[in-house]
Amino acid sequence: MQLTHNGIFISVEGIEGAGKSSAMLTITNWLKDKGISITTTREPGGTKIAEEIRQLILSHNEENIHFITELLLFFAARSQNIHNCILPALKSGNAVIADRFIDATFAYQQGGRGISEETISILEKLVLNDLKPDLTILLDVTVDTGMARIKNRAELNKQQPDRIEQEKLDFFTNVRNCYLQRAEKFNDRIVIVDANQSLQDVNKQLETILSKKLSKYFAK
Amino acid sequence: MQLTHNGIFISVEGIEGAGKSSAMLTITNWLKDKGISITTTREPGGTKIAEEIRQLILSHNEENIHFITELLLFFAARSQNIHNCILPALKSGNAVIADRFIDATFAYQQGGRGISEETISILEKLVLNDLKPDLTILLDVTVDTGMARIKNRAELNKQQPDRIEQEKLDFFTNVRNCYLQRAEKFNDRIVIVDANQSLQDVNKQLETILSKKLSKYFAK
Repeated sequence: MQLTHNGIFISVEGIEGAGKSSAMLTITNWLKDKGISITTTREPGGTKIAEEIRQLILSHNEENIHFITELLLFFAARSQNIHNCILPALKSGNAVIADRFIDATFAYQQGGRGISEETISILEKLVLNDLKPDLTILLDVTVDTGMARIKNRAELNKQQPDRIEQEKLDFFTNVRNCYLQRAEKFNDRIVIVDANQSLQDVNKQLETILSKKLSKYFAK
Repeated sequence: MQLTHNGIFISVEGIEGAGKSSAMLTITNWLKDKGISITTTREPGGTKIAEEIRQLILSHNEENIHFITELLLFFAARSQNIHNCILPALKSGNAVIADRFIDATFAYQQGGRGISEETISILEKLVLNDLKPDLTILLDVTVDTGMARIKNRAELNKQQPDRIEQEKLDFFTNVRNCYLQRAEKFNDRIVIVDANQSLQDVNKQLETILSKKLSKYFAK
Protein backbone atom coordinates (compact mmCIF):
# COMPACT_ATOMS: atom_id res chain seq x y z
CA MET A 1 0.00 0.00 0.00
CA GLN A 2 1.23 3.51 -0.81
CA LEU A 3 0.79 6.71 1.13
CA THR A 4 -1.13 9.34 -0.81
CA HIS A 5 1.27 12.13 0.12
CA ASN A 6 4.78 12.52 1.46
CA GLY A 7 4.87 10.58 4.69
CA ILE A 8 2.79 10.65 7.84
CA PHE A 9 4.13 12.12 11.05
CA ILE A 10 2.77 10.61 14.27
CA SER A 11 3.88 11.61 17.77
CA VAL A 12 3.18 9.67 20.95
CA GLU A 13 2.95 11.68 24.15
CA GLY A 14 2.33 11.07 27.83
CA ILE A 15 3.87 11.28 31.27
CA GLU A 16 6.29 8.68 32.61
CA GLY A 17 4.61 5.29 32.91
CA ALA A 18 1.85 6.08 30.38
CA GLY A 19 2.92 3.18 28.16
CA LYS A 20 4.55 5.02 25.29
CA SER A 21 6.90 2.18 24.33
CA SER A 22 4.06 -0.34 23.99
CA ALA A 23 1.98 2.14 22.01
CA MET A 24 4.93 2.88 19.69
CA LEU A 25 5.13 -0.85 18.98
CA THR A 26 1.41 -1.20 18.32
CA ILE A 27 1.41 1.76 15.92
CA THR A 28 4.54 0.49 14.17
CA ASN A 29 3.04 -2.97 13.65
CA TRP A 30 -0.28 -1.57 12.47
CA LEU A 31 1.48 0.52 9.78
CA LYS A 32 3.90 -2.26 8.83
CA ASP A 33 0.91 -4.55 8.24
CA LYS A 34 -0.21 -2.02 5.64
CA GLY A 35 3.19 -2.21 3.96
CA ILE A 36 4.29 1.26 5.06
CA SER A 37 7.98 1.91 5.74
CA ILE A 38 8.55 3.19 9.25
CA THR A 39 11.08 5.52 10.84
CA THR A 40 10.93 5.66 14.62
CA THR A 41 12.59 8.39 16.61
CA ARG A 42 12.52 9.73 20.14
CA GLU A 43 12.95 13.07 21.85
CA PRO A 44 15.32 14.24 22.99
CA GLY A 45 17.28 12.14 20.49
CA GLY A 46 16.88 10.64 17.06
CA THR A 47 20.33 11.48 15.69
CA LYS A 48 23.85 11.00 17.04
CA ILE A 49 24.23 14.63 18.11
CA ALA A 50 20.67 14.78 19.47
CA GLU A 51 21.36 11.64 21.53
CA GLU A 52 24.48 13.33 22.95
CA ILE A 53 22.33 16.30 23.92
CA ARG A 54 19.87 13.82 25.51
CA GLN A 55 22.69 12.50 27.70
CA LEU A 56 23.46 16.05 28.82
CA ILE A 57 19.82 16.71 29.70
CA LEU A 58 18.98 13.47 31.47
CA SER A 59 22.17 12.62 33.34
CA HIS A 60 22.61 13.49 36.96
CA ASN A 61 25.00 16.41 37.16
CA GLU A 62 26.57 18.01 40.15
CA GLU A 63 25.93 21.26 38.31
CA ASN A 64 22.34 22.49 38.29
CA ILE A 65 20.88 22.82 34.77
CA HIS A 66 19.06 26.16 34.56
CA PHE A 67 15.50 25.78 33.22
CA ILE A 68 16.27 28.02 30.24
CA THR A 69 19.36 25.94 29.41
CA GLU A 70 17.21 22.82 29.55
CA LEU A 71 14.62 24.39 27.23
CA LEU A 72 17.31 25.40 24.70
CA LEU A 73 18.90 21.94 24.81
CA PHE A 74 15.53 20.28 24.12
CA PHE A 75 15.04 22.53 21.10
CA ALA A 76 18.65 22.04 19.92
CA ALA A 77 18.12 18.27 19.95
CA ARG A 78 14.76 18.73 18.22
CA SER A 79 16.37 20.84 15.51
CA GLN A 80 18.80 18.00 14.71
CA ASN A 81 16.00 15.42 14.85
CA ILE A 82 13.87 17.44 12.43
CA HIS A 83 16.57 18.24 9.87
CA ASN A 84 18.58 15.01 9.96
CA CYS A 85 15.89 12.41 10.74
CA ILE A 86 12.22 13.44 10.52
CA LEU A 87 12.16 15.60 7.36
CA PRO A 88 14.35 13.26 5.25
CA ALA A 89 12.19 10.27 6.33
CA LEU A 90 8.93 12.07 5.51
CA LYS A 91 10.40 13.19 2.19
CA SER A 92 11.16 9.59 1.29
CA GLY A 93 7.51 8.72 2.01
CA ASN A 94 7.96 6.97 5.36
CA ALA A 95 5.68 7.11 8.34
CA VAL A 96 7.63 8.74 11.19
CA ILE A 97 6.63 7.72 14.71
CA ALA A 98 8.15 9.92 17.40
CA ASP A 99 8.33 9.02 21.07
CA ARG A 100 7.50 12.58 22.21
CA PHE A 101 7.70 15.82 20.21
CA ILE A 102 6.70 19.48 20.61
CA ASP A 103 3.73 18.88 22.96
CA ALA A 104 6.14 17.37 25.50
CA THR A 105 8.02 20.69 25.69
CA PHE A 106 4.83 22.59 26.46
CA ALA A 107 3.76 19.92 28.98
CA TYR A 108 7.10 19.67 30.80
CA GLN A 109 8.63 23.10 30.39
CA GLN A 110 5.44 25.18 30.55
CA GLY A 111 3.33 22.92 32.76
CA GLY A 112 6.17 21.47 34.82
CA ARG A 113 8.76 24.27 34.97
CA GLY A 114 6.48 27.27 34.59
CA ILE A 115 8.10 28.78 31.49
CA SER A 116 5.62 31.00 29.61
CA GLU A 117 3.72 29.56 26.63
CA GLU A 118 4.85 32.63 24.65
CA THR A 119 8.55 31.87 25.18
CA ILE A 120 8.14 28.25 24.11
CA SER A 121 6.05 29.31 21.10
CA ILE A 122 8.89 31.57 19.91
CA LEU A 123 11.30 28.64 19.91
CA GLU A 124 8.64 26.40 18.34
CA LYS A 125 8.36 28.82 15.40
CA LEU A 126 12.16 29.12 15.09
CA VAL A 127 12.84 25.38 15.11
CA LEU A 128 9.71 23.78 13.63
CA ASN A 129 8.68 26.41 11.09
CA ASP A 130 5.35 24.90 10.06
CA LEU A 131 6.09 21.26 10.85
CA LYS A 132 3.59 19.57 13.10
CA PRO A 133 2.50 15.96 13.57
CA ASP A 134 -0.40 14.75 11.44
CA LEU A 135 -1.60 12.81 14.46
CA THR A 136 -0.62 12.91 18.13
CA ILE A 137 -1.61 10.12 20.49
CA LEU A 138 -1.79 11.35 24.09
CA LEU A 139 -1.64 8.38 26.43
CA ASP A 140 -3.35 9.77 29.49
CA VAL A 141 -2.70 8.07 32.80
CA THR A 142 -3.17 9.26 36.37
CA VAL A 143 0.06 10.36 38.01
CA ASP A 144 -0.31 7.68 40.70
CA THR A 145 -0.61 4.90 38.11
CA GLY A 146 2.25 6.29 35.99
CA MET A 147 4.57 6.59 38.97
CA ALA A 148 3.73 3.09 40.19
CA ARG A 149 4.62 1.69 36.74
CA ILE A 150 7.91 3.63 36.69
CA LYS A 151 8.79 2.31 40.13
CA ASN A 152 8.06 -1.27 39.05
CA ARG A 153 10.08 -0.87 35.87
CA ALA A 154 13.07 0.59 37.75
CA GLU A 155 12.97 -2.31 40.23
CA LEU A 156 12.72 -4.88 37.44
CA ASN A 157 15.61 -3.35 35.49
CA LYS A 158 17.60 -2.40 38.60
CA GLN A 159 17.91 1.10 37.13
CA GLN A 160 17.96 4.49 38.77
CA PRO A 161 15.26 6.87 37.50
CA ASP A 162 16.74 9.69 35.36
CA ARG A 163 16.87 13.37 36.35
CA ILE A 164 13.39 14.15 35.06
CA GLU A 165 11.78 10.93 36.32
CA GLN A 166 12.91 12.00 39.80
CA GLU A 167 10.72 15.11 39.82
CA LYS A 168 7.97 15.33 42.46
CA LEU A 169 4.29 14.33 42.09
CA ASP A 170 3.14 17.96 41.75
CA PHE A 171 5.45 18.36 38.76
CA PHE A 172 3.87 15.42 36.93
CA THR A 173 0.35 16.55 37.86
CA ASN A 174 1.09 19.92 36.21
CA VAL A 175 2.62 18.15 33.19
CA ARG A 176 -0.45 15.93 32.80
CA ASN A 177 -2.84 18.88 33.11
CA CYS A 178 -0.91 20.81 30.48
CA TYR A 179 -1.04 17.81 28.12
CA LEU A 180 -4.83 17.61 28.62
CA GLN A 181 -5.24 21.34 27.98
CA ARG A 182 -3.29 21.03 24.72
CA ALA A 183 -5.41 18.04 23.68
CA GLU A 184 -8.48 20.20 24.12
CA LYS A 185 -6.93 23.16 22.26
CA PHE A 186 -5.68 21.06 19.33
CA ASN A 187 -8.44 18.46 19.22
CA ASP A 188 -8.13 18.12 15.43
CA ARG A 189 -4.62 16.71 15.89
CA ILE A 190 -4.33 15.27 19.41
CA VAL A 191 -6.37 12.20 20.40
CA ILE A 192 -6.52 11.13 24.03
CA VAL A 193 -6.24 7.42 24.87
CA ASP A 194 -7.20 6.28 28.38
CA ALA A 195 -3.94 4.60 29.34
CA ASN A 196 -5.16 3.50 32.77
CA GLN A 197 -6.81 0.55 30.96
CA SER A 198 -5.22 -2.84 30.36
CA LEU A 199 -2.61 -3.06 27.61
CA GLN A 200 -5.08 -5.05 25.50
CA ASP A 201 -7.78 -2.38 25.80
CA VAL A 202 -5.29 0.41 25.07
CA ASN A 203 -4.19 -1.42 21.91
CA LYS A 204 -7.79 -1.91 20.79
CA GLN A 205 -8.45 1.82 21.28
CA LEU A 206 -5.24 2.69 19.41
CA GLU A 207 -6.14 0.56 16.41
CA THR A 208 -9.59 2.14 16.20
CA ILE A 209 -8.00 5.61 16.23
CA LEU A 210 -5.44 4.69 13.58
CA SER A 211 -8.13 3.27 11.27
CA LYS A 212 -10.27 6.34 11.68
CA LYS A 213 -7.53 8.99 11.48
CA LEU A 214 -5.13 7.54 8.94
CA SER A 215 -7.43 6.05 6.28
CA LYS A 216 -7.34 9.31 4.32
CA TYR A 217 -3.58 8.91 3.83
CA PHE A 218 -3.86 5.58 2.05
CA ALA A 219 -4.41 5.23 -1.67
CA LYS A 220 -7.32 2.90 -2.38
CA MET B 1 41.47 48.31 46.30
CA GLN B 2 37.73 47.71 46.32
CA LEU B 3 35.27 47.90 43.47
CA THR B 4 32.60 50.53 44.01
CA HIS B 5 29.78 48.25 42.94
CA ASN B 6 29.08 44.58 42.45
CA GLY B 7 31.78 43.37 40.06
CA ILE B 8 32.90 44.46 36.62
CA PHE B 9 32.07 42.38 33.56
CA ILE B 10 34.59 42.57 30.69
CA SER B 11 34.34 40.59 27.46
CA VAL B 12 37.12 40.14 24.93
CA GLU B 13 36.08 39.62 21.32
CA GLY B 14 37.70 39.07 17.96
CA ILE B 15 38.10 36.60 15.13
CA GLU B 16 40.50 33.65 15.25
CA GLY B 17 44.09 34.83 15.58
CA ALA B 18 43.18 38.27 16.96
CA GLY B 19 45.18 37.64 20.14
CA LYS B 20 42.40 37.10 22.66
CA SER B 21 44.43 34.86 24.96
CA SER B 22 47.24 37.42 25.30
CA ALA B 23 44.75 40.21 25.87
CA MET B 24 42.94 38.15 28.55
CA LEU B 25 46.26 37.80 30.36
CA THR B 26 47.09 41.52 30.12
CA ILE B 27 43.66 42.50 31.44
CA THR B 28 43.86 39.92 34.24
CA ASN B 29 47.28 41.16 35.34
CA TRP B 30 46.23 44.81 35.19
CA LEU B 31 43.27 44.12 37.49
CA LYS B 32 45.21 41.83 39.80
CA ASP B 33 47.78 44.62 40.27
CA LYS B 34 44.92 46.69 41.64
CA GLY B 35 44.06 43.93 44.11
CA ILE B 36 40.86 42.91 42.34
CA SER B 37 39.76 39.26 42.45
CA ILE B 38 39.33 37.83 38.99
CA THR B 39 37.07 35.19 37.47
CA THR B 40 37.95 34.23 33.91
CA THR B 41 35.57 32.33 31.68
CA ARG B 42 35.20 31.51 28.02
CA GLU B 43 32.38 30.90 25.56
CA PRO B 44 31.16 28.46 24.76
CA GLY B 45 32.17 27.10 28.17
CA GLY B 46 32.78 28.37 31.67
CA THR B 47 31.04 25.56 33.57
CA LYS B 48 31.22 21.78 33.38
CA ILE B 49 27.98 21.45 31.42
CA ALA B 50 28.82 24.44 29.20
CA GLU B 51 32.20 22.87 28.41
CA GLU B 52 30.41 19.65 27.41
CA ILE B 53 28.21 21.72 25.09
CA ARG B 54 31.41 23.34 23.73
CA GLN B 55 32.71 19.89 22.82
CA LEU B 56 29.48 19.17 20.93
CA ILE B 57 29.73 22.44 19.00
CA LEU B 58 33.41 22.40 18.11
CA SER B 59 34.14 18.74 17.46
CA HIS B 60 34.14 17.32 13.97
CA ASN B 61 31.02 15.27 13.55
CA GLU B 62 29.97 13.05 10.72
CA GLU B 63 26.53 14.51 11.30
CA ASN B 64 26.00 18.06 10.03
CA ILE B 65 25.04 20.52 12.79
CA HIS B 66 22.13 22.63 11.54
CA PHE B 67 22.77 26.37 11.98
CA ILE B 68 19.75 26.75 14.27
CA THR B 69 20.96 23.84 16.44
CA GLU B 70 24.35 25.55 16.67
CA LEU B 71 22.72 28.85 17.68
CA LEU B 72 20.64 27.13 20.40
CA LEU B 73 23.68 25.25 21.73
CA PHE B 74 25.68 28.49 22.00
CA PHE B 75 22.85 30.07 23.99
CA ALA B 76 22.38 26.93 26.14
CA ALA B 77 26.07 27.06 27.08
CA ARG B 78 25.78 30.82 27.69
CA SER B 79 22.80 30.28 29.97
CA GLN B 80 24.85 27.92 32.16
CA ASN B 81 27.84 30.29 32.08
CA ILE B 82 25.68 33.23 33.17
CA HIS B 83 23.79 31.49 35.98
CA ASN B 84 26.52 29.24 37.36
CA CYS B 85 29.66 31.32 36.73
CA ILE B 86 29.28 34.98 35.70
CA LEU B 87 26.42 36.16 37.95
CA PRO B 88 27.71 34.47 41.13
CA ALA B 89 31.22 35.92 40.49
CA LEU B 90 29.87 39.44 39.89
CA LYS B 91 27.70 39.12 42.99
CA SER B 92 30.74 38.30 45.07
CA GLY B 93 32.41 41.48 43.75
CA ASN B 94 34.84 39.91 41.30
CA ALA B 95 35.88 41.21 37.93
CA VAL B 96 34.72 38.68 35.33
CA ILE B 97 36.76 38.50 32.13
CA ALA B 98 35.10 36.48 29.37
CA ASP B 99 36.85 35.14 26.29
CA ARG B 100 33.91 35.95 23.99
CA PHE B 101 30.28 36.67 24.93
CA ILE B 102 27.09 37.85 23.21
CA ASP B 103 28.80 39.92 20.48
CA ALA B 104 30.45 36.73 19.19
CA THR B 105 27.02 35.22 18.51
CA PHE B 106 25.97 38.21 16.43
CA ALA B 107 29.33 38.25 14.62
CA TYR B 108 29.46 34.49 13.87
CA GLN B 109 25.82 33.49 13.61
CA GLN B 110 24.45 36.69 12.06
CA GLY B 111 27.53 37.85 10.14
CA GLY B 112 28.93 34.40 9.41
CA ARG B 113 25.87 32.15 9.10
CA GLY B 114 23.31 34.73 7.97
CA ILE B 115 20.79 34.22 10.80
CA SER B 116 18.65 37.35 11.25
CA GLU B 117 19.57 39.90 13.94
CA GLU B 118 15.97 39.71 15.14
CA THR B 119 16.17 35.95 15.82
CA ILE B 120 19.40 36.30 17.77
CA SER B 121 18.00 39.28 19.69
CA ILE B 122 15.04 37.17 20.84
CA LEU B 123 17.41 34.57 22.32
CA GLU B 124 19.60 37.33 23.77
CA LYS B 125 16.61 38.71 25.67
CA LEU B 126 15.56 35.22 26.84
CA VAL B 127 19.01 34.19 28.10
CA LEU B 128 20.71 37.45 29.16
CA ASN B 129 17.74 39.43 30.45
CA ASP B 130 19.48 42.75 31.01
CA LEU B 131 23.01 41.46 31.53
CA LYS B 132 25.64 43.02 29.31
CA PRO B 133 29.37 43.56 29.67
CA ASP B 134 30.49 46.83 31.27
CA LEU B 135 33.32 46.89 28.76
CA THR B 136 34.00 44.89 25.60
CA ILE B 137 37.43 44.87 24.00
CA LEU B 138 37.21 44.12 20.28
CA LEU B 139 40.61 42.97 19.03
CA ASP B 140 40.37 43.85 15.36
CA VAL B 141 42.70 42.09 12.99
CA THR B 142 42.59 41.60 9.22
CA VAL B 143 41.40 38.16 8.22
CA ASP B 144 44.72 37.47 6.46
CA THR B 145 46.75 38.24 9.58
CA GLY B 146 44.37 36.29 11.83
CA MET B 147 44.43 33.22 9.59
CA ALA B 148 48.24 33.33 9.31
CA ARG B 149 48.50 33.36 13.13
CA ILE B 150 46.07 30.41 13.42
CA LYS B 151 48.07 28.44 10.88
CA ASN B 152 51.33 29.11 12.75
CA ARG B 153 49.76 28.14 16.06
CA ALA B 154 48.34 24.90 14.65
CA GLU B 155 51.74 23.99 13.22
CA LEU B 156 53.51 24.80 16.48
CA ASN B 157 51.04 22.77 18.55
CA LYS B 158 50.59 20.07 15.93
CA GLN B 159 46.82 20.56 16.29
CA GLN B 160 44.01 20.34 13.78
CA PRO B 161 41.90 23.52 13.57
CA ASP B 162 38.42 23.00 15.08
CA ARG B 163 35.15 22.95 13.11
CA ILE B 164 34.70 26.72 13.18
CA GLU B 165 38.36 27.56 12.56
CA GLN B 166 38.02 25.58 9.33
CA GLU B 167 35.47 27.96 7.82
CA LYS B 168 36.44 29.83 4.64
CA LEU B 169 37.94 33.33 4.34
CA ASP B 170 34.59 34.88 3.29
CA PHE B 171 33.03 33.60 6.49
CA PHE B 172 35.63 35.36 8.66
CA THR B 173 35.42 38.54 6.57
CA ASN B 174 31.68 38.65 7.29
CA VAL B 175 32.30 37.91 10.97
CA ARG B 176 34.86 40.72 11.22
CA ASN B 177 32.56 43.19 9.46
CA CYS B 178 29.70 42.32 11.81
CA TYR B 179 31.97 42.84 14.83
CA LEU B 180 32.96 46.27 13.48
CA GLN B 181 29.32 47.22 12.86
CA ARG B 182 28.44 46.29 16.44
CA ALA B 183 31.39 48.32 17.75
CA GLU B 184 29.99 51.34 15.93
CA LYS B 185 26.44 50.69 17.14
CA PHE B 186 27.45 50.14 20.78
CA ASN B 187 30.39 52.55 20.97
CA ASP B 188 29.69 53.34 24.62
CA ARG B 189 30.51 49.73 25.53
CA ILE B 190 32.74 48.28 22.78
CA VAL B 191 36.28 49.62 22.28
CA ILE B 192 38.25 48.59 19.19
CA VAL B 193 41.92 47.72 19.60
CA ASP B 194 44.07 47.50 16.46
CA ALA B 195 45.34 43.94 16.89
CA ASN B 196 47.50 43.98 13.75
CA GLN B 197 50.11 45.78 15.87
CA SER B 198 52.89 44.12 17.84
CA LEU B 199 51.92 42.42 21.10
CA GLN B 200 53.72 45.20 23.00
CA ASP B 201 51.75 47.94 21.26
CA VAL B 202 48.47 46.06 21.74
CA ASN B 203 49.20 45.76 25.45
CA LYS B 204 50.01 49.47 25.73
CA GLN B 205 46.73 50.32 24.01
CA LEU B 206 44.83 47.89 26.28
CA GLU B 207 46.26 49.45 29.45
CA THR B 208 45.31 52.93 28.30
CA ILE B 209 41.75 51.76 27.65
CA LEU B 210 41.48 49.99 31.01
CA SER B 211 42.71 53.10 32.87
CA LYS B 212 40.26 55.32 31.06
CA LYS B 213 37.21 53.03 31.14
CA LEU B 214 37.52 51.33 34.51
CA SER B 215 38.67 54.15 36.82
CA LYS B 216 35.05 54.96 37.70
CA TYR B 217 34.64 51.49 39.22
CA PHE B 218 37.40 51.91 41.79
CA ALA B 219 36.87 53.48 45.18
CA LYS B 220 39.46 56.19 45.80
